[in-house]
Amino acid sequence: MKHGKVILMGAGPGDLDLLTLKAVKALAGADILLLDDLANPDIVSLAPQARVIRVGKRGGCKSTPQDFIQRLMRRYAWQGLNVLRVKGGEALLFGRAGEEMAWLKTHGIAVEVINGISAGLAAAASLGMSLTHREHCRGVTFVTAHAQDHSEPDWQTLAASGTTLVIYMGMSRIDTLTQALLQHLPASTPSAIVQWASTPQERRLVCRLNGLAQKATAAGFGSPGIILVGDAVGEADADGATSASAENESMTVDAARVDADGLLNGMLRLA
Amino acid sequence: MKHGKVILMGAGPGDLDLLTLKAVKALAGADILLLDDLANPDIVSLAPQARVIRVGKRGGCKSTPQDFIQRLMRRYAWQGLNVLRVKGGEALLFGRAGEEMAWLKTHGIAVEVINGISAGLAAAASLGMSLTHREHCRGVTFVTAHAQDHSEPDWQTLAASGTTLVIYMGMSRIDTLTQALLQHLPASTPSAIVQWASTPQERRLVCRLNGLAQKATAAGFGSPGIILVGDAVGEADADGATSASAENESMTVDAARVDADGLLNGMLRLA
Repeated sequence: MKHGKVILMGAGPGDLDLLTLKAVKALAGADILLLDDLANPDIVSLAPQARVIRVGKRGGCKSTPQDFIQRLMRRYAWQGLNVLRVKGGEALLFGRAGEEMAWLKTHGIAVEVINGISAGLAAAASLGMSLTHREHCRGVTFVTAHAQDHSEPDWQTLAASGTTLVIYMGMSRIDTLTQALLQHLPASTPSAIVQWASTPQERRLVCRLNGLAQKATAAGFGSPGIILVGDAVGEADADGATSASAENESMTVDAARVDADGLLNGMLRLA
Repeated sequence: MKHGKVILMGAGPGDLDLLTLKAVKALAGADILLLDDLANPDIVSLAPQARVIRVGKRGGCKSTPQDFIQRLMRRYAWQGLNVLRVKGGEALLFGRAGEEMAWLKTHGIAVEVINGISAGLAAAASLGMSLTHREHCRGVTFVTAHAQDHSEPDWQTLAASGTTLVIYMGMSRIDTLTQALLQHLPASTPSAIVQWASTPQERRLVCRLNGLAQKATAAGFGSPGIILVGDAVGEADADGATSASAENESMTVDAARVDADGLLNGMLRLA
């Protein structure tokens, strides 16, 4: 029997309108959906014929073992089914795409990747700022505060890199994290947090680095949140972005559901 | 008269299937399209009612002055039209989104951003590798080799950052760039180039850092190409990705045209 393949797909930060056309097509053609709990659960409406298996792995909560997820993918691929592994954000930034691809390749299973919009980029869009404004930086670094060996990133080198820092999985340790950065960056360094970027629950905070942890804690910011640090964040327009986005949010979400269905119908009529 | 707004949109790396649903809707509703020459020119088929103005800015070629582009956006927004500024890749990585947003805001024009898939992420998808494999790195840095003041990035700090390096606009100086990196990284550091990621012209090269410039030059690699450097690139599957992708490429491109039209029709029937 011919093996099915596994597609690793980035579902974007939450707003279903941020799915790519390629992702929508893959959803429509999937037999099995392995759904990460950082992906918007409404995404299943775009895969009406798929069997949906929820395999959440959020830090700190009860989670599905990585090995079990990989064996599930292999099992269904060996049955000749099209397996779609849906990850929040961009499949190739954090998450376990690297390990999953390596494991599947060693078992002779074809793997394809479909890119998605990472939460860090959606956060910058909400803040109305470029991550690489050339008057402020040479680029941008996406880094996780949560390492396999529980070590800290080399904040001194990152602070000296001349890049905007976009920090994932840092909300649970924002106090120690900002203290570490303040050893190497000015107290006045522009910084921001965007929680639940692109969703109706989105919240934003823009302030100086030395006030970030205290203000975030006082306002109840938590996971999943993106922390942005660097001079380019000085261009962020917290109030402007907030008011413009608050006005659009409820519309966007309803529109996403209606249009995604419509788009899917358009595709199915073609097929 | 009510002002129109300006949307800054990332058109992705080339494959129209990598457009987000949000981008497809913005294209369908645009009155004016200001089209970067790194965006796939076929994108105009998704904006049938828009007036299209090409404002290429590719490095080294004759280009439209930035100031003129900004004045065009303002002129049409002041006429109450919906202006869509289409940039290659992701709008918030490189390009001039930061300057354009700041300028438009000072002129009282509302700006919205629609994310896109950056060429660096599409390159990683083609290579079948995660940019942040946790066994190899703490994150990923996107950096441009082409700075406003013609200075070099701080390669020593970037090499020490513990992140995968994804270098944009580096092909014209790949020799000096890799020489600089080899001062701080082992000769055997895994590296790769992906030119024209996601398009039918896509080409990939995977080798050790000390052979990259010579092999790229010998094989005629040029702009626009993404250079990837770091231990995570050791997971790249050049041959596997090449053969799998070569098989899919011609299909993908044709499918993009047909389905994008179909999706658009589906949306218009709904509207």
